Amino acid sequence: MTTNRQEEAQRYARLQEQYAGYQAAGLKLDLTRGKPATEQLDLSDTLDGILDGCYLLQDGTDVRNYGGITGIPEARQLGAEMLEVNPENVLAGGNSSLTLMYQYVSYMMRSRWQTDGGAPVKFICQVPGYDRHFTICEHFGIDMLPLPLLDTGPDMGRIEELVAADEQIKGIWCVPQYSNPTGHSYDEQTVKGFARLADTAVRDFRIFWDHAYAVHHLTDKPAPLANLMLAAQQTGHQDSVLMFASTSKITFAGAGLAFLATSTSELAAFVDFLGFQMIGFDKVNQLRHVKWLENITKINKHMEQHKAIIKPKFELVEKKLAEKLSGKNMASWTRPRGGYFVSLDTNPGLAMQVVELAAAAGVKLTPAGATFPYGKDPADTNIRIAPTYPAINELDTAMDVLVTCIELASLADSLRD
Amino acid sequence: MTTNRQEEAQRYARLQEQYAGYQAAGLKLDLTRGKPATEQLDLSDTLDGILDGCYLLQDGTDVRNYGGITGIPEARQLGAEMLEVNPENVLAGGNSSLTLMYQYVSYMMRSRWQTDGGAPVKFICQVPGYDRHFTICEHFGIDMLPLPLLDTGPDMGRIEELVAADEQIKGIWCVPQYSNPTGHSYDEQTVKGFARLADTAVRDFRIFWDHAYAVHHLTDKPAPLANLMLAAQQTGHQDSVLMFASTSKITFAGAGLAFLATSTSELAAFVDFLGFQMIGFDKVNQLRHVKWLENITKINKHMEQHKAIIKPKFELVEKKLAEKLSGKNMASWTRPRGGYFVSLDTNPGLAMQVVELAAAAGVKLTPAGATFPYGKDPADTNIRIAPTYPAINELDTAMDVLVTCIELASLADSLRD
Repeated sequence: MTTNRQEEAQRYARLQEQYAGYQAAGLKLDLTRGKPATEQLDLSDTLDGILDGCYLLQDGTDVRNYGGITGIPEARQLGAEMLEVNPENVLAGGNSSLTLMYQYVSYMMRSRWQTDGGAPVKFICQVPGYDRHFTICEHFGIDMLPLPLLDTGPDMGRIEELVAADEQIKGIWCVPQYSNPTGHSYDEQTVKGFARLADTAVRDFRIFWDHAYAVHHLTDKPAPLANLMLAAQQTGHQDSVLMFASTSKITFAGAGLAFLATSTSELAAFVDFLGFQMIGFDKVNQLRHVKWLENITKINKHMEQHKAIIKPKFELVEKKLAEKLSGKNMASWTRPRGGYFVSLDTNPGLAMQVVELAAAAGVKLTPAGATFPYGKDPADTNIRIAPTYPAINELDTAMDVLVTCIELASLADSLRD
Repeated sequence: MTTNRQEEAQRYARLQEQYAGYQAAGLKLDLTRGKPATEQLDLSDTLDGILDGCYLLQDGTDVRNYGGITGIPEARQLGAEMLEVNPENVLAGGNSSLTLMYQYVSYMMRSRWQTDGGAPVKFICQVPGYDRHFTICEHFGIDMLPLPLLDTGPDMGRIEELVAADEQIKGIWCVPQYSNPTGHSYDEQTVKGFARLADTAVRDFRIFWDHAYAVHHLTDKPAPLANLMLAAQQTGHQDSVLMFASTSKITFAGAGLAFLATSTSELAAFVDFLGFQMIGFDKVNQLRHVKWLENITKINKHMEQHKAIIKPKFELVEKKLAEKLSGKNMASWTRPRGGYFVSLDTNPGLAMQVVELAAAAGVKLTPAGATFPYGKDPADTNIRIAPTYPAINELDTAMDVLVTCIELASLADSLRD
């Protein structure tokens, strides 16, 4: 045994001891989902009661009664400011942008993407990506084509090739700002590339632009994202653009307001489709949100308070990872400037093992592979860390456990060589 | 011309004059939809603000955050009391029972009713019935078999025959209490007949029991409806029962709480299905409703206040119809003991004409035929009157217009003979 080898074995023994200590501590920590912390929810507690008995809109509409699938004008205006589009392009919905995405896919599957021959519809899915996008595809039997996400967004050249080669490709999932889970934002060339994408009208191609983190910055000077709708209007491709946003991580995660923006003609057709399944979204809650959030200036101010709560958590994750793993060739990770996640890559073949080790020591992580279509990360490297929900002392312990597990798995792997 | 004939012609001329008067008055009245009146909505104005900053459930769940598709336990309990079932059979949803119905049909179409041969799924639809039930069928390409509704409910013998003869019949729409639009309630034998319906498990038959008017009585001593779930549990057919209810006409029509009840195993499967399209319903609004409505005793008390507002409107409709049309062989109509509608039948072939005449005089009615599948009333007789929304003086005028139009159309018809 070489000295290096001996040192590694000793280090491994110490880590095992440390790990046993965590196991004995009976921890019950959770880094799985991008949920706001209690203190973040507290920021909007005045929502309930904000109407003060006033349920009428300026145009006289009584928000308590039935009707109006596109949402109240005031809420459409709020969504328009968040998505930087015109209010007539916006539908203000219920408490979930995910539901709007599902409903839009459902609408297209029923009306436009059906093929007589039964050839499956295909979507391009950036990886790593958001598991709930992928499960919508699975649900509808849509084939998923994984495409690695670069630092500047997806490789538009590759997307053009794929789309040109196969006309059954009908859509792509995008989280253009602070991508889930990597935190990357698309650069201007990428956004313009999407607007220029050829052949979109012919095949009813749709860009699902999930702008979930539009105002969720972790820095003081966030880089602006180029406006896809504006760019698409210039190329005449606005029908292919579907922008989504919500207040789930602005007000209440489970009782917020979701938005969809597209061309006015597409919006009208989608509203007709929704008319078979609803009479209208909850307009009372829409009015609550308008009264509370008012406009984009107020939203940005409000988000500063969120930042004050969650930024220290992201800093703690970076600190722990840097302290324990830097220069060891055991992992690489992202340093997001916004959003809700840190994406970590272990050495190949170890992610699942790390997640299992952590679980056995009482720290729940998103299942390895979840950030890939069908839950299968071919290299088994990616782990999504969601630091916002736990209290900072819990996050501290959870990160200690996580880095220990990464070191353990990496050293065991190295000792096996 | 006989004396009778002359009298009829004179009467017709007087009616035309009267009608011209209404036309000149520039009326703008609406009897189309079963919407609560403003005073009814006012009864629940304390809903917004009722939480008083308390967003936690007894079990510690924070209703502001993500999660929990079956709904909060307290809301499931409330739904259980309304539907007279166990809370574990209940899902507490969002603001629309119609959406739950649509989602359940969607679930069955995707998972259980698909046939390789492509033979269409069929539903039995009681007529006259609720147009939004029928449009769900149309949307999914489900063939509709109309079945006339009797005073005691549908003819169970006929249903048994239909179901025995065609295994593609997968469901039936029911509004078992104060049926939309006739106001009829099913008697005990009918409810038991549904529970005994053979072959339901084999073919995944579903009874869509839309209990929309469960607590919406217009009399002091409402006849109780037999409990379908209990009866179905006794025959082992509980999987085929889907009960729906909502607070749309108890609190806010557009911002209430909807319920679905079925067997626990079916409920679990449906929740899995919903998991692809949502993270959870609005639990904050569920908690608001629990705090406000508390239990079935409080709900019944609350509904007394609704009754005080809408009963005079139903009495006015009856009075106007009786005064102007009794004994003239021009129309028959129902005298509902609850619910939201009066169903009126003109002589054959006149309903559409009456609706058009009324519209031209500024009184909007539900389109003739809407109470039948595909919007086609074969005899063209049925008109649905929705008296709750207009103010009583508006209803008074609207009914004057309506009876004038019925007399006009009937006399013109008679004069043509």
